[in-house]
Amino acid sequence: MILALDAMGGDHAPTEICLGAISACSKYPDLEVVLVGDGSQIERVIKDAEPFVSKRIHVVHTDEYIAMDESPTVAFRKKKRASIRLAMEMVKAGDAQGCISAGNTGAIVAGGVLILGRIPGIDRPGLGVPIPLPNKITLLIDVGATIRCKPINLYQFAIMGEIYMRNTLGVKSPTVALLSNGEEEIKGDEVVCEARNMLAKANVEFIGYVEGKDIPLGVADVVVCDGFTGNVLLKFVEGVGEALYRLLREEMDQRILPKVGFLFLIPMLKELWNRFDYEKYGGTPLLGVEGVVIKAHGRSKARAIDSALKVARDFVMNRGVELIRNGLDRGGM
Amino acid sequence: MILALDAMGGDHAPTEICLGAISACSKYPDLEVVLVGDGSQIERVIKDAEPFVSKRIHVVHTDEYIAMDESPTVAFRKKKRASIRLAMEMVKAGDAQGCISAGNTGAIVAGGVLILGRIPGIDRPGLGVPIPLPNKITLLIDVGATIRCKPINLYQFAIMGEIYMRNTLGVKSPTVALLSNGEEEIKGDEVVCEARNMLAKANVEFIGYVEGKDIPLGVADVVVCDGFTGNVLLKFVEGVGEALYRLLREEMDQRILPKVGFLFLIPMLKELWNRFDYEKYGGTPLLGVEGVVIKAHGRSKARAIDSALKVARDFVMNRGVELIRNGLDRGGM
Repeated sequence: MILALDAMGGDHAPTEICLGAISACSKYPDLEVVLVGDGSQIERVIKDAEPFVSKRIHVVHTDEYIAMDESPTVAFRKKKRASIRLAMEMVKAGDAQGCISAGNTGAIVAGGVLILGRIPGIDRPGLGVPIPLPNKITLLIDVGATIRCKPINLYQFAIMGEIYMRNTLGVKSPTVALLSNGEEEIKGDEVVCEARNMLAKANVEFIGYVEGKDIPLGVADVVVCDGFTGNVLLKFVEGVGEALYRLLREEMDQRILPKVGFLFLIPMLKELWNRFDYEKYGGTPLLGVEGVVIKAHGRSKARAIDSALKVARDFVMNRGVELIRNGLDRGGM
Repeated sequence: MILALDAMGGDHAPTEICLGAISACSKYPDLEVVLVGDGSQIERVIKDAEPFVSKRIHVVHTDEYIAMDESPTVAFRKKKRASIRLAMEMVKAGDAQGCISAGNTGAIVAGGVLILGRIPGIDRPGLGVPIPLPNKITLLIDVGATIRCKPINLYQFAIMGEIYMRNTLGVKSPTVALLSNGEEEIKGDEVVCEARNMLAKANVEFIGYVEGKDIPLGVADVVVCDGFTGNVLLKFVEGVGEALYRLLREEMDQRILPKVGFLFLIPMLKELWNRFDYEKYGGTPLLGVEGVVIKAHGRSKARAIDSALKVARDFVMNRGVELIRNGLDRGGM
């Protein structure tokens, strides 16, 4: 299997991206990775890899890439040889079975639609991020591909998310819920309300509305919302983690006694951290486009890129795109 | 000062509501509270209060109240003697300077608009909840009064929230931010984008867009969003707290060593808890209506009701409604 990896996307590109490719290729002997980006920078990292790994890592050189703060659609049109664009064109041409980038989210979404195109029947794609909870994973979809949605978009996110959870993440009969401002049927605006009516008739385990508090409590396997709400929530979680970390450090600096306690607590905190570690699940699929496109977190280091490559590999092996295409036929999206 | 308190609203009504009234009246000798609800139930609780307190607690009896799961607008029209309605009518008639309820949020918002009316020029009211952060309080507005917003709504929430933070919570030159799906100007949908343009010209310390992660990090004093997003976020925070608590208990049950650490950690956790304790700030003002209306959390016990009465008292003393009315004139809302 060949996967195209945007070597220039993300805060730690290209070094950590290349190291992630080496790590994944060491694990999966069937995997070949094409690193797209600055050839000399890439070569400097991959030259030290074991031969049985390095023979499966290829390089496509380009000088262009799309920065995190560039306007995605403008940059995508202007930069014909941007690394993310070339990676997607490889998928389009059949030279790679999937592509991965830790770069500009807007560019990944725009590129997915412009280069690969939407699956026939799909109105808008959705980014579904797996959120690790204490005893399960919940897929939150959408987290930023489609900022404001029509009912059909929420409906299709639900169907695609359900297929992804069932087939790629291996959850049997995943439950699907719509995020709203209350559990009662009278809640929600017209868009959410209409999506609810559509989902009530769909061929999925639809459990109705859930509230914000139900997400961390793991009430549903797939939680559907528009990209604005999902993006705000996802980033809020990051902020809470950072704020708690700062607070713990501050407390540690101020007190003597709890420092001792902190030592005892380390195994517990490590365990907690492991449970919530996004790097383990470091890949967010762009669902609804004609090809495997995985977004990795902008702050991804080698381990997260390794996970994102695994997610792409699983998605390809489980024929995820084909399943969504068939799911549309079956569910009548 | 006379405040009308809905004795029948909330999960712990009427006992904890009545105890909250006793607690507040013990602290503030200038305060009189009218408890509106089932007279015999109320009397049973307040009969044990000290005479110098009980003489300042009055009862207005009614058999009707609006349940948490009732449709707010229907219930408000049908139940002419619902406790929350009578409390608001007292404010309207000038028999009380403000009212407080821990009941059905929708009914409080609908009642505020129907009974008290909007301040002239205000399109929709907003619920602004003070979120305690490590070193400050951030006001998140709206958290559920106006589910989907026009640009003018977000703009007016910002102006009203700024006035509230400055005058009632005593923050000098509060910074105001709009919640969006990214910090860059290209982010946001048309509504958020237009509100940004309006706020850039307003007479407040507007710092532009913030992302979800900036809320827990305390980047702004006032964070503005539509009621759908604010409600989802607020409830998400509750869920995170509950999930962490469950997880800690589970971990405690499974390990021996960290239990020792946990003992050492107790003072630290207590300190953390104190910092984030919503009961200390237990009152959410409904801004934009012609009167002081404070929503207390549905799970409020006596201490949170006591805080909500304090919030109402401060709001009355600081002439909050008048300031918003004047702020409109000044800012040209």
